[in-house]
Amino acid sequence: MSINVGIIGATGHTGEVLIELLLGHPHVRICHLYNSGKSCLGPQVISEIFPKFKKRLDLTCQKPDFTQIKKDCELIFLALPHTVSMQFLPKLLNLGKKVIDLSADYRLQNPATYEKFYKTKHRDQANLKQAVYGLPELNRAKIKTAKILANPGCYPTCAILALAPLLALDLVETGSIIIDAKSGVSGAGKKLEKEYLFSEIQGDFRAYKVNQHQHAPEINQQLTKLAGEKIAVTFVPHLLPIERGILETCYLKKKSAARSRASNLVELYKKFYKNEPFIRINPKGVFPRVKDVAKTNFCDIGVKDFGDTIIVIGAIDNLLKGASAQAVQNMNIMYKLPETTGLL
Amino acid sequence: MSINVGIIGATGHTGEVLIELLLGHPHVRICHLYNSGKSCLGPQVISEIFPKFKKRLDLTCQKPDFTQIKKDCELIFLALPHTVSMQFLPKLLNLGKKVIDLSADYRLQNPATYEKFYKTKHRDQANLKQAVYGLPELNRAKIKTAKILANPGCYPTCAILALAPLLALDLVETGSIIIDAKSGVSGAGKKLEKEYLFSEIQGDFRAYKVNQHQHAPEINQQLTKLAGEKIAVTFVPHLLPIERGILETCYLKKKSAARSRASNLVELYKKFYKNEPFIRINPKGVFPRVKDVAKTNFCDIGVKDFGDTIIVIGAIDNLLKGASAQAVQNMNIMYKLPETTGLL
Amino acid sequence: MSINVGIIGATGHTGEVLIELLLGHPHVRICHLYNSGKSCLGPQVISEIFPKFKKRLDLTCQKPDFTQIKKDCELIFLALPHTVSMQFLPKLLNLGKKVIDLSADYRLQNPATYEKFYKTKHRDQANLKQAVYGLPELNRAKIKTAKILANPGCYPTCAILALAPLLALDLVETGSIIIDAKSGVSGAGKKLEKEYLFSEIQGDFRAYKVNQHQHAPEINQQLTKLAGEKIAVTFVPHLLPIERGILETCYLKKKSAARSRASNLVELYKKFYKNEPFIRINPKGVFPRVKDVAKTNFCDIGVKDFGDTIIVIGAIDNLLKGASAQAVQNMNIMYKLPETTGLL
Amino acid sequence: MSINVGIIGATGHTGEVLIELLLGHPHVRICHLYNSGKSCLGPQVISEIFPKFKKRLDLTCQKPDFTQIKKDCELIFLALPHTVSMQFLPKLLNLGKKVIDLSADYRLQNPATYEKFYKTKHRDQANLKQAVYGLPELNRAKIKTAKILANPGCYPTCAILALAPLLALDLVETGSIIIDAKSGVSGAGKKLEKEYLFSEIQGDFRAYKVNQHQHAPEINQQLTKLAGEKIAVTFVPHLLPIERGILETCYLKKKSAARSRASNLVELYKKFYKNEPFIRINPKGVFPRVKDVAKTNFCDIGVKDFGDTIIVIGAIDNLLKGASAQAVQNMNIMYKLPETTGLL
Repeated sequence: MSINVGIIGATGHTGEVLIELLLGHPHVRICHLYNSGKSCLGPQVISEIFPKFKKRLDLTCQKPDFTQIKKDCELIFLALPHTVSMQFLPKLLNLGKKVIDLSADYRLQNPATYEKFYKTKHRDQANLKQAVYGLPELNRAKIKTAKILANPGCYPTCAILALAPLLALDLVETGSIIIDAKSGVSGAGKKLEKEYLFSEIQGDFRAYKVNQHQHAPEINQQLTKLAGEKIAVTFVPHLLPIERGILETCYLKKKSAARSRASNLVELYKKFYKNEPFIRINPKGVFPRVKDVAKTNFCDIGVKDFGDTIIVIGAIDNLLKGASAQAVQNMNIMYKLPETTGLL
Repeated sequence: MSINVGIIGATGHTGEVLIELLLGHPHVRICHLYNSGKSCLGPQVISEIFPKFKKRLDLTCQKPDFTQIKKDCELIFLALPHTVSMQFLPKLLNLGKKVIDLSADYRLQNPATYEKFYKTKHRDQANLKQAVYGLPELNRAKIKTAKILANPGCYPTCAILALAPLLALDLVETGSIIIDAKSGVSGAGKKLEKEYLFSEIQGDFRAYKVNQHQHAPEINQQLTKLAGEKIAVTFVPHLLPIERGILETCYLKKKSAARSRASNLVELYKKFYKNEPFIRINPKGVFPRVKDVAKTNFCDIGVKDFGDTIIVIGAIDNLLKGASAQAVQNMNIMYKLPETTGLL
Repeated sequence: MSINVGIIGATGHTGEVLIELLLGHPHVRICHLYNSGKSCLGPQVISEIFPKFKKRLDLTCQKPDFTQIKKDCELIFLALPHTVSMQFLPKLLNLGKKVIDLSADYRLQNPATYEKFYKTKHRDQANLKQAVYGLPELNRAKIKTAKILANPGCYPTCAILALAPLLALDLVETGSIIIDAKSGVSGAGKKLEKEYLFSEIQGDFRAYKVNQHQHAPEINQQLTKLAGEKIAVTFVPHLLPIERGILETCYLKKKSAARSRASNLVELYKKFYKNEPFIRINPKGVFPRVKDVAKTNFCDIGVKDFGDTIIVIGAIDNLLKGASAQAVQNMNIMYKLPETTGLL
Repeated sequence: MSINVGIIGATGHTGEVLIELLLGHPHVRICHLYNSGKSCLGPQVISEIFPKFKKRLDLTCQKPDFTQIKKDCELIFLALPHTVSMQFLPKLLNLGKKVIDLSADYRLQNPATYEKFYKTKHRDQANLKQAVYGLPELNRAKIKTAKILANPGCYPTCAILALAPLLALDLVETGSIIIDAKSGVSGAGKKLEKEYLFSEIQGDFRAYKVNQHQHAPEINQQLTKLAGEKIAVTFVPHLLPIERGILETCYLKKKSAARSRASNLVELYKKFYKNEPFIRINPKGVFPRVKDVAKTNFCDIGVKDFGDTIIVIGAIDNLLKGASAQAVQNMNIMYKLPETTGLL
């Protein structure tokens, strides 16, 4: 069996990593690569954009061609910037194709929230409702039959996985959740802006979009579902002088009523995630580091309580579990393949 | 006027930076350089240890010689590891010398706390009481007449300066202060341990000593003084893949009674630090980055409230304001020199 | 079909990368992991040494057990430091096992040269003669039947591949070959020495072992074979502040008699390597960069003449084509598997 | 005494470093800061461009104002891109001002060579002839009375200083000089191009402008003068993943007639540079590294012969000895100040 896939947005970070993963996937054939369709972009051999694909993939990346897609592809990955995905998705659905969207366009169920954080009206509210949030550990059943798969953001993937057990088990005060998040530069894509120059990043470290990042509502939406009550986290992202990796340090307050139940957090976490192939819970007092998960689809979690304060640290590779590899994990689920195919 | 100084512990990071600073100080003569006196260390020309001092400083670094010190030096800098300083300090005091100690040995007033965090009994409790904590912005008067100057730790310098206004003005709940701290590798000195190899640090990021770092009691001691009530912060340090710099992201809760007083935090901070030459308060919504303070003695601070949550971010160069340059600032105060001499 | 392999020296850089590769190889079963057998090393679960192998490989790394090897393994990889491999290899041969040795112990045919550069007598000269130098592009026929496979050094792999066409085709003066080589830090293994600390490497660049590196005789030996006359290159290695990757800039003089034949070097190179799956020749005027080959088994080569001066630049990933992936490539050849299995 | 200076081009790397140096210079007053005068640039407070100058320099950077310059400045530094300097310099000369130009515009005496390498006609050939090449170690006498000081390029400074003794003493074959040069990213200024993004540079290393770099003719011009015969070096620059620093590895052939004279190269070098405050010759067999010279105005040189091959390695900080600090050194000479003022 072979899934015939196309990638729209093959020239960015997530596209590059997605190609790499799909080349190593035993049941996928990459049929076509497309750029975002901006008029200035002519066709380019993919190995000219990414020399590392020379002798490995002989395809030309050009602007999206729906006739071709209709004929050749059954699944399309959208590795596009936010707001661009929703320009393509309705047409793909109309052609009967499944779509895995790596942008933020179909993650937020409330279009008003989307508009507030992405500074543009949502242009495809009709399809928003049937989009499935693709975090396998919490949403596997729905993913199996998804037609529109909204692949989660990198920060939310790490935050939600790190906090889910505490909220699902009602162990913490929901009003004072703090997430101090740190990400490598690739999280910002390949924007040509002064702040992403080597001379700006190397040797530096800084917070940005302090408590105003667009991933906060995505985290809030999922945690709210888990807790059954409205949650608004304090979320401060920082920029690390590394290429790949996210580490999030979370601070929570134990509910006083939950003290006895919350006595062995490591065990609770292990139980909560017991059949998950890509979640690894660290021994008590051992916290994950970025290198543990770099180049993998794992999310590693360390958790410990200090009196009534609980500290949870989660780590992922932002381009893998935080983007392209999670997209492949979702594809595997959608196509009834073993979930780890091509990922271990 | 020229201050005749000696440095004991000239071969480590803080020693190296201290030499650099004192070479550029118009009123200092470096008379002697000493190592820590361990038997394995023979005399070494300083420019063989640090080639960058070739043609700039022609001194040999050898084991401490008290006869020489007695004759030639009036001020001694101890740039030594913790627990080593207290082996030398009593002798130096007996010789009538002033001492600026960059180690932690004279920072904590309670010897039991010292023993708990530094895993060894304090061996010079007699002199502990007369040690002055050398944070100029909060303790300038006492520094002027200090004989034993306990130069603050790097994390505490940044944390205390970032939080002092909120506590001195009684604006925040003292029970839920969170400090998420990140430091460059030089903070760990030059330990030859696997975890500090390039191949371990580069591309990595991790927390360490989670809520158990020895700088927490130092922070608590000073904040407790400011607040007039016992404070125990949650303090999680992380290791950045950079050489120099500290950034600390602090989360606090406004006291409900203080809401009106806490309406313009940036102005409150500017007023609190209004005559300080080395504190810079950022405009509202602008948070400092490591590059703003690297290679300087400044502490930059950004502060903003989000409802009842206050976020303060402070940044320093850990080897300068967090160590050697602050030591020079303290020296300037002790010797009635303009405080910025040799530092701007 | 499944090859049952053991790895001796599984805890170093090349061991780590080899495990990673073999986990993804469809026809290999890793049966046992061993350390170097030094008495201070107790058994350790591999995922405690390398947390990234948690949930992926459940083996304990212990000291070499020849009874176990005899029973369970058919092929042994020696990922050991120089001089240690030759302590194990004779026993393994006696057990009838094939061996791929990633150390330098069986690369140099002249024991005197070995002794000069590795500062120790060669202890297994008997087996030295039957060792096959494992550079597939130049030695494929012999590799097929090798019992002792001497996997090439990282610098030599890149240098020999970059220069082989010029020497095989007799195009250059053999007396004035200059190789200016630059390598990432992982080339030095995981030595716990001051010079490999993050604070020493980051922001630095330097030459080392100037014209005295132990890889020079290995390069000379192979180039001499190709040229049919004695060659002694000028070889200066440098240390790059990156983890992985080698780039070598080579300077040669055209033979005056060869001017007409050397008119289209790019075409000559393409022809020379025309069936090679892991050699990529760049278009004229385009030189490879480290990122083109990082994380791959490719050797990329750019070549151009400037009058009588020829400049060739080669690039490889030192841990892959320069070590572990080339070892897997050699294994594939030895076991009649398609040469790219598990490597693309 | 105080020199009143203005800087045109204060917003780039060299401008930033120049401001830093001049702030620490005891005999300089920075009167005005100007940008390059492009119409898109409005006035900006310098500490908004470089936050590290907050509380240190309270000047606004605006477009060049010649009335102001005429009145207030005696010396102008041009820290401008190539081809922009020559638009300003004639006007400044007409106002009777001295000019230190950090661009390449007045370094090459032959306008045809300039046009070939800088892709534009030289527009101020009239003044070209009176420009003095500002390499103090070789040209001090002329610098003293210079009105137009052409501050050398970074690569040429290092190359010329590393090779000057060999050529001045006629020890090497002039036809086969190879310079393999490596530079940190700041050498490229602050160009907003994809290739200078953190994600492109970090972990990478590559050659660029192979044997076609515009600094080659500058090196050739000076070496030709020294040797008294035409020299054309082979020059290959590479891009290091560090911010600051240049290291150049040079390969030369001893003249057979010079064998006896070239027996002790280290001593010859020491003698050649014996009164130079900023040249340091390493002991035999010890080669400089970038960290030895980073943040200093020194050029460190190691030299050793291997039979008839001589290897010389030079290192400088490209922004200091290779740009702004050398400009200050030249200013000191022009104004009869001790040459090391503000630089040690």
